[in-house]
Amino acid sequence: MKVAIVGSTGYGGVELIRFLIHHPGVEITSVISASSAGESIAAGYPHLNQILMDTLDGVDPAEMKAKADVVFTATPSGVSTKLVPQLLAVGLKVIDLSGDFRLKSGEQYEHWYKHEPAPAELLQSAVYGLSEWYGKDVVGVPFISNPGCYPTAALLGLGPALQAGWIDGDSIIIDGKSGVSGAGRGVNLTSHYAEINENLKPYKVNRHQHIPEIEQVLQDVHGKPVTVTFTTHLTPMTRGIMCTMYAKLNGSYADHDFVQLYSEHYAGRRFVRVRPEGTWPATKEVYGSNYCDIGFSVDKRTQRVTIISVIDNVVKGAAGQAIQNLNLMMGWDETTGLSYVPVYP
Amino acid sequence: MKVAIVGSTGYGGVELIRFLIHHPGVEITSVISASSAGESIAAGYPHLNQILMDTLDGVDPAEMKAKADVVFTATPSGVSTKLVPQLLAVGLKVIDLSGDFRLKSGEQYEHWYKHEPAPAELLQSAVYGLSEWYGKDVVGVPFISNPGCYPTAALLGLGPALQAGWIDGDSIIIDGKSGVSGAGRGVNLTSHYAEINENLKPYKVNRHQHIPEIEQVLQDVHGKPVTVTFTTHLTPMTRGIMCTMYAKLNGSYADHDFVQLYSEHYAGRRFVRVRPEGTWPATKEVYGSNYCDIGFSVDKRTQRVTIISVIDNVVKGAAGQAIQNLNLMMGWDETTGLSYVPVYP
Amino acid sequence: MKVAIVGSTGYGGVELIRFLIHHPGVEITSVISASSAGESIAAGYPHLNQILMDTLDGVDPAEMKAKADVVFTATPSGVSTKLVPQLLAVGLKVIDLSGDFRLKSGEQYEHWYKHEPAPAELLQSAVYGLSEWYGKDVVGVPFISNPGCYPTAALLGLGPALQAGWIDGDSIIIDGKSGVSGAGRGVNLTSHYAEINENLKPYKVNRHQHIPEIEQVLQDVHGKPVTVTFTTHLTPMTRGIMCTMYAKLNGSYADHDFVQLYSEHYAGRRFVRVRPEGTWPATKEVYGSNYCDIGFSVDKRTQRVTIISVIDNVVKGAAGQAIQNLNLMMGWDETTGLSYVPVYP
Amino acid sequence: MKVAIVGSTGYGGVELIRFLIHHPGVEITSVISASSAGESIAAGYPHLNQILMDTLDGVDPAEMKAKADVVFTATPSGVSTKLVPQLLAVGLKVIDLSGDFRLKSGEQYEHWYKHEPAPAELLQSAVYGLSEWYGKDVVGVPFISNPGCYPTAALLGLGPALQAGWIDGDSIIIDGKSGVSGAGRGVNLTSHYAEINENLKPYKVNRHQHIPEIEQVLQDVHGKPVTVTFTTHLTPMTRGIMCTMYAKLNGSYADHDFVQLYSEHYAGRRFVRVRPEGTWPATKEVYGSNYCDIGFSVDKRTQRVTIISVIDNVVKGAAGQAIQNLNLMMGWDETTGLSYVPVYP
Repeated sequence: MKVAIVGSTGYGGVELIRFLIHHPGVEITSVISASSAGESIAAGYPHLNQILMDTLDGVDPAEMKAKADVVFTATPSGVSTKLVPQLLAVGLKVIDLSGDFRLKSGEQYEHWYKHEPAPAELLQSAVYGLSEWYGKDVVGVPFISNPGCYPTAALLGLGPALQAGWIDGDSIIIDGKSGVSGAGRGVNLTSHYAEINENLKPYKVNRHQHIPEIEQVLQDVHGKPVTVTFTTHLTPMTRGIMCTMYAKLNGSYADHDFVQLYSEHYAGRRFVRVRPEGTWPATKEVYGSNYCDIGFSVDKRTQRVTIISVIDNVVKGAAGQAIQNLNLMMGWDETTGLSYVPVYP
Repeated sequence: MKVAIVGSTGYGGVELIRFLIHHPGVEITSVISASSAGESIAAGYPHLNQILMDTLDGVDPAEMKAKADVVFTATPSGVSTKLVPQLLAVGLKVIDLSGDFRLKSGEQYEHWYKHEPAPAELLQSAVYGLSEWYGKDVVGVPFISNPGCYPTAALLGLGPALQAGWIDGDSIIIDGKSGVSGAGRGVNLTSHYAEINENLKPYKVNRHQHIPEIEQVLQDVHGKPVTVTFTTHLTPMTRGIMCTMYAKLNGSYADHDFVQLYSEHYAGRRFVRVRPEGTWPATKEVYGSNYCDIGFSVDKRTQRVTIISVIDNVVKGAAGQAIQNLNLMMGWDETTGLSYVPVYP
Repeated sequence: MKVAIVGSTGYGGVELIRFLIHHPGVEITSVISASSAGESIAAGYPHLNQILMDTLDGVDPAEMKAKADVVFTATPSGVSTKLVPQLLAVGLKVIDLSGDFRLKSGEQYEHWYKHEPAPAELLQSAVYGLSEWYGKDVVGVPFISNPGCYPTAALLGLGPALQAGWIDGDSIIIDGKSGVSGAGRGVNLTSHYAEINENLKPYKVNRHQHIPEIEQVLQDVHGKPVTVTFTTHLTPMTRGIMCTMYAKLNGSYADHDFVQLYSEHYAGRRFVRVRPEGTWPATKEVYGSNYCDIGFSVDKRTQRVTIISVIDNVVKGAAGQAIQNLNLMMGWDETTGLSYVPVYP
Repeated sequence: MKVAIVGSTGYGGVELIRFLIHHPGVEITSVISASSAGESIAAGYPHLNQILMDTLDGVDPAEMKAKADVVFTATPSGVSTKLVPQLLAVGLKVIDLSGDFRLKSGEQYEHWYKHEPAPAELLQSAVYGLSEWYGKDVVGVPFISNPGCYPTAALLGLGPALQAGWIDGDSIIIDGKSGVSGAGRGVNLTSHYAEINENLKPYKVNRHQHIPEIEQVLQDVHGKPVTVTFTTHLTPMTRGIMCTMYAKLNGSYADHDFVQLYSEHYAGRRFVRVRPEGTWPATKEVYGSNYCDIGFSVDKRTQRVTIISVIDNVVKGAAGQAIQNLNLMMGWDETTGLSYVPVYP
């Protein structure tokens, strides 16, 4: 399987390279960058020196078609909207890592993303690739929309309890914390080291574009509309997302009930690890890996449950899940090329 | 005013020194450490070299009485319980930074702290020094119990809205995040650099001993019992606490209403800064200072408000507020010796 | 004394504000920014909220003259060259924090800074304000060139030994390490959090523009030309510079000899602290303060001495020393408004 | 090949696990810990949850012999001295990661390590496994002493130039900087987050036990005794070592000469990457990988060369090189199970 990567010089792009270079079913045949075409990728990313010395290609659908079977588009919002239709038109399979095809409603997209939406039929045709929930739906399809980083952590953590009816769908609060790589390699004051280090900073409070994505899936799981309160914080670390989630309990469930429910729900899904009762995951425990770890704390005093899920935002929240989706799309084992131990410490 | 500091070799202790050494109304006459008596404080804290070269005294109430008028006890929980009565007995004024005298109920103390409580009459006599709420109560008293770090941030942020009846007392969720200095200078695996750096780690979820302290004050403000959901996270930074707080609105209030309510409530209180509408505070913006900054985000979609407050846990969350309480106790301006600009970046 | 600050929105500028706002002999009458004139300084620096709410002025020498007696120019290299002559022409006193007036040779300036140099007579008239070495020379002068951050740490550390003839002037190697704030608030890939965190990165090896500044002063101290090897490293921290310096010994000196030599040399100079034998300074031990701490290690095996000096690059390496120079210029005690305890931890 | 790991709960131990678990020629048959025998390794290292759920074995040579062919001893200095002879006696192959068998002279060991040395014949029989220099010597041997972290970085960087006679062996200065993981998982004040973060701290200046190890190999390369000046600094990061090395040139060599010399010397050795002229490596560019990257800067002004080498101290500086040595010992390709892309950012 020949793959091309658009947006190779972003953090999502180089992370795709890190995994795909060792993937037994894949050959990287084109690394593509609109801004750095003609340069060596290793010039901008010296860690790739003597590992991947390719020159970056420009964005040319016909050339991609000549070189590749599948294209990963790790492009900013607003770019994929225009590029993906061209790639599909020439017969390429596409796994899109931007947010442009996650929302089924173009209106919602425009409201939250402040860009013009893709055509409605394209939005409908994109299969939302939250692997552990929609893995069957992506088999054999030509076009997958890869989930956002926060939605991946939030939805894997909330899904089973909401589906089981254990928590009140109107009571969900998601306190999200992310490392800085989630904002990409672009330079601006909010990624400046001296502004981030020894600092914890809220952003886009109640305004994050991942809100409608989370609600869309929760509605699908719950069977009726769900609205969530969602706050995001920039945390002084490079990688990692944690969602600390709060909900009212619909019954008298204990920690071990949650452990059991989730263990059964995710049985056989290697990349979701349910933590033993009384323990909670930390972001470093999934560093550099495709795992999503989940822990619970029921509070009898308040009849609420606290659900904590962590991922590496660049892996399970982007490149790793995209490759997991490629595996599922192709009918391969979903762990192929992805089963690495987290880097600790 | 001569002051002694018990627990001078802890982070709270050296921070008291940092401020008191320049305080115009105060002279440090004894720095005390049970574990390091006889050593130079600058040996363990070279930043004090040529600034404070005192030898550490042992813990001896009679000697303290001979040297000082007021004692700050920056001691671990369980130690103050025993020490403070002796200090009061010899006629010293005491400002206690441990948690031993914050809860009025000995039973609650025992339940959450797992230590034997102080005698009931002592618990009753301690005045809880949340300066902006109980500043009048500490004037002239001999014994102040200094608030905890999380409670300070949480209560300053929740108080005005709850008192005004704008939020539902049964709906309060507090997502707390703290830097590592909050756990003190003691060495253990959870303060090991390699375990904390590039990591975000929940701890004591629904079990933190600051829960009853928060609830006790909220009940006082609200006029009836309040239970809160409270989660704490260890964040990869040295200083800083952020409380992100969620509550249901009892009416149709906008961000600017909150800004106005809080600005009026805290008018004249220099150390609480209400952020302009649409902006939220970051921990670094109060670094090294006694400020508590508060911002708001009302979500019309969910009829909830998100209130975000930040402090420097070692200053407003410990040493700074203790000195603010000394100032209030003595009838001085509350900002005396404390009005420093945050260190940024 | 009325002071204006050009470049108030840079890190050097806000640090000047942090100290000057409490300086008993000074009133800040104008904060100036070419790029942000008309905006509130607190908008870009929320930590100044309710502390300094001034609107930023534009760069206008006549207006500065109307408002101020002394101007601090915390401007990028190449800007001061043009601005300072105008300020001096209208009769303002100037303390320049850029590198534009540190080198006496315009040719050297052009070679290392790649800008056109200031006129030769201006370069000659600027008094180089390494306070502990040239403090007498700055008294009463109208124009001071404030030293660079690395040169301050390096020269305070090397000066006494070189002057005493204890070390070989041809053998000096300086291994410099700096926090990221040294590069200013400008955004670019080398200040991006994800590129700096968990990273140690050399830059400008043998090419740093501080090399000729160091050599110029060492020549003055030594009495003959000195060339040094100087390497700089970007370290994952916000503040702090350490220079680890190596030189051959000209005789048989022990650690305690160095401690004594330096203690005597810097006797009475409050901001240089010589460390006791067998101990070395760490950058955090001077964090936020104007101290320069120095330690030694003689190696009998190699007949070399290792001298280690640390400063806070934004304070002693920029704003703090500039204020120290103001104090000296005015005949005030050099510690006025600067004698704060380092912020630790 | 069945392998056992003594010291599995240290950072070197878990890093061995991270690589060996995917090594095609190896099966981990026993994870061993003197202090935590009987516990699950995943209890102390939750990142291994559902990946390696083994119970830790105690230290029992006979049991090791029954379970394994090769033992990695990732034990503290002083422990291997006693344990390794027992393992060799029962016929196990041993790769020792402690420092106990690196020095050929027991006297030197005692002087620098302050422990009793191993018997002289054992010190002689241990083959020093600096893979790129002594790879041929380890083929087929039963007992390899794995190099220290600093020596690996320093020796790979200095070796070719010294061997070629390009640098003066009496002029070598090594400025070493290390992340905190190098000191292991043991808890003490110098690994406390609040003491390390935003701090740069020298330690063991001219006294580090890696000095004689470096000199022993340099003497072997140079053909006559070499003494070096070696300073070590604790850097606020978890992983990574950089050695910045200075030496006088014996002739007129330029950067590109060094690039060529080193490229030829290390031709075919995948884990040493020579950087292109005018660029220098950063520690993050080898993060989590077995690479050692080397760059150069000749200074015509001073006739010195600055050589900069970086490794991940836990990988090439410990576990990775140990596995590389296993590969060489067994006659396998040295990259087997080790050829991962560095984790960036």
